[in-house]
Amino acid sequence: MASYFDPERARAPPAIPMATPSVTKFKIALCQLSVTPDKERNIAHARKAIEDAAGKGAQLVLLPEIWNSPYSNDSFPIYAEDIDAGGDASPSIAMLSEVSRLLKITIVGGSIPERSGGRLYNTCCVIGTDGKLKAKHRKIHLFDIDIPGKITFMESKTLTAGETPTIVDTEVGRIGIGICYDIRFQELAMIYAARGAHLLCYPGAFNMTTGPLHWELLQRARATDNQLYVATCSPARDTRSGYVAWGHSTLVGPRKHAESLETKGKLLLFHQKKGGGGGGGGGLFGEVLATTEDEETIIIAEIDYSLIEERRTSLPLTKQRRGDLYQLVDFERLNSQ
Amino acid sequence: MASYFDPERARAPPAIPMATPSVTKFKIALCQLSVTPDKERNIAHARKAIEDAAGKGAQLVLLPEIWNSPYSNDSFPIYAEDIDAGGDASPSIAMLSEVSRLLKITIVGGSIPERSGGRLYNTCCVIGTDGKLKAKHRKIHLFDIDIPGKITFMESKTLTAGETPTIVDTEVGRIGIGICYDIRFQELAMIYAARGAHLLCYPGAFNMTTGPLHWELLQRARATDNQLYVATCSPARDTRSGYVAWGHSTLVGPRKHAESLETKGKLLLFHQKKGGGGGGGGGLFGEVLATTEDEETIIIAEIDYSLIEERRTSLPLTKQRRGDLYQLVDFERLNSQ
Repeated sequence: MASYFDPERARAPPAIPMATPSVTKFKIALCQLSVTPDKERNIAHARKAIEDAAGKGAQLVLLPEIWNSPYSNDSFPIYAEDIDAGGDASPSIAMLSEVSRLLKITIVGGSIPERSGGRLYNTCCVIGTDGKLKAKHRKIHLFDIDIPGKITFMESKTLTAGETPTIVDTEVGRIGIGICYDIRFQELAMIYAARGAHLLCYPGAFNMTTGPLHWELLQRARATDNQLYVATCSPARDTRSGYVAWGHSTLVGPRKHAESLETKGKLLLFHQKKGGGGGGGGGLFGEVLATTEDEETIIIAEIDYSLIEERRTSLPLTKQRRGDLYQLVDFERLNSQ
Repeated sequence: MASYFDPERARAPPAIPMATPSVTKFKIALCQLSVTPDKERNIAHARKAIEDAAGKGAQLVLLPEIWNSPYSNDSFPIYAEDIDAGGDASPSIAMLSEVSRLLKITIVGGSIPERSGGRLYNTCCVIGTDGKLKAKHRKIHLFDIDIPGKITFMESKTLTAGETPTIVDTEVGRIGIGICYDIRFQELAMIYAARGAHLLCYPGAFNMTTGPLHWELLQRARATDNQLYVATCSPARDTRSGYVAWGHSTLVGPRKHAESLETKGKLLLFHQKKGGGGGGGGGLFGEVLATTEDEETIIIAEIDYSLIEERRTSLPLTKQRRGDLYQLVDFERLNSQ
């Protein structure tokens, strides 16, 4: 493309080239967990799922939004933990820390209600293979919607919004974090892509109205427009709870080969088939690589970052942007220069 | 939402509030035309389709990308017209002008190869009910992709890219125009939404590789993220031609009611059903309201702009953006201030 279109000016600061991480091919687990009002059970249950996932070879485990507590404004203050204080003040994150260290895996810990400085947040912790907290994302777009006769929820009644995007270098790539409603704001995904993300993780609990309409669509759109992997993880559906989650945890990315699916009890294993005659199974970006329905499940699927660069060469969107016409500004990165 | 998140700062200049157009409810026609190497036939054929569409009540007619010429770098110079010179120098646009004046309809005239100042463009003309040219969009993102073994095309071999976005006030609302590959760049749709668009029209000829992967996805994503209507129009598929179009012209928007479909020869009429018990058919944004397969078809469907404001109230994304964290700059609008 002619250089006078200034593709690099389409992002301010200019986009960071994607680095090659130490691990480019690995298994991710999406733990679509059942969640109950019993917090101790929820923690033990999540631990068991993480151990199962690691046993199947997962190097990255993603948990659902609000997995230690019912999803309700009444519950958030009661189940909230002081993550910064740690230890007994945050049994949920202490468990994640211990299990990630023991199993030598990276955990994107869904989210839990966090108490800090007299405020409550909806917070995702990313834990490294050494058990240390690598990053903490506080949901930056609170879920305040009112669809008459369908779904009304106002997180802002109890929660405070986070103040920054969160992107983190892990042993399994550079990961941008969003929580549920954050996925509706395409600017966040664009910022992460410009910061060199390989994968976006969105723990989320879409509902029975917006779930069927938009959950998969938004994941596929973010993955296609930004040419990277997107993983989501929802709680399992519980029709008796006050807030009924859609489920449908999903991995979206470029498909290399046709796939096969193996079912083992609550485990769904997605295998990419090599060979297959060419042309049949491959894709560009935005394909659903692994997904499930609403029941409790652990999805195990493969991510291969080498496909990102390959597919971006075929469809060179980043070089074709019109930086002479539009620009997306990332204020945090701009101000830190 | 707390005002310190500066939602208005998420767009620079700040987004223009959507105005209420004089006509809020009307029928749109998507003319998925067969295209041949015979230009005179193509023009007469398009005219007949427009007349049929208007006869069925369409007040807005959308044509496909490159409807007067085969889609190929060899054909563009041969079929190109000098739109600015008009008259005999541009028989395709002269026809659109005449027929729109006679039928008192608005036409978003797909696109044709345009010759201007020794250069060639892929250009969409918007014609008002008075037959006058209201706006001309020259494709701003040229289709240069190379997917080995699947599809390779380099529009930039023959074409020059346009220099500005194009949004136009018509009798049927404020319409933002993109041509085919323009739809991949989410920034363009965001700019149009910030300029108060009700509807985005994308004449486009996706191919047999990217069509099934991304055509519907991108339309639904633009409509959902920007909370407006999106209409696309493709040529009908011709498997004997050098470039085989995917077809699947589509209208995407918020669904009010369940729908019924009536088929009359080459006409597909989508009717929105009133009543129906509530809750069954309604949607938020991004629903496929009318679509078709690959054969020649005229889709007639209804647009109701009053739904946009209603659904934006339920899901108030424009008030929830984080203008403290990100900002999309529209340089043309910024520089004209």
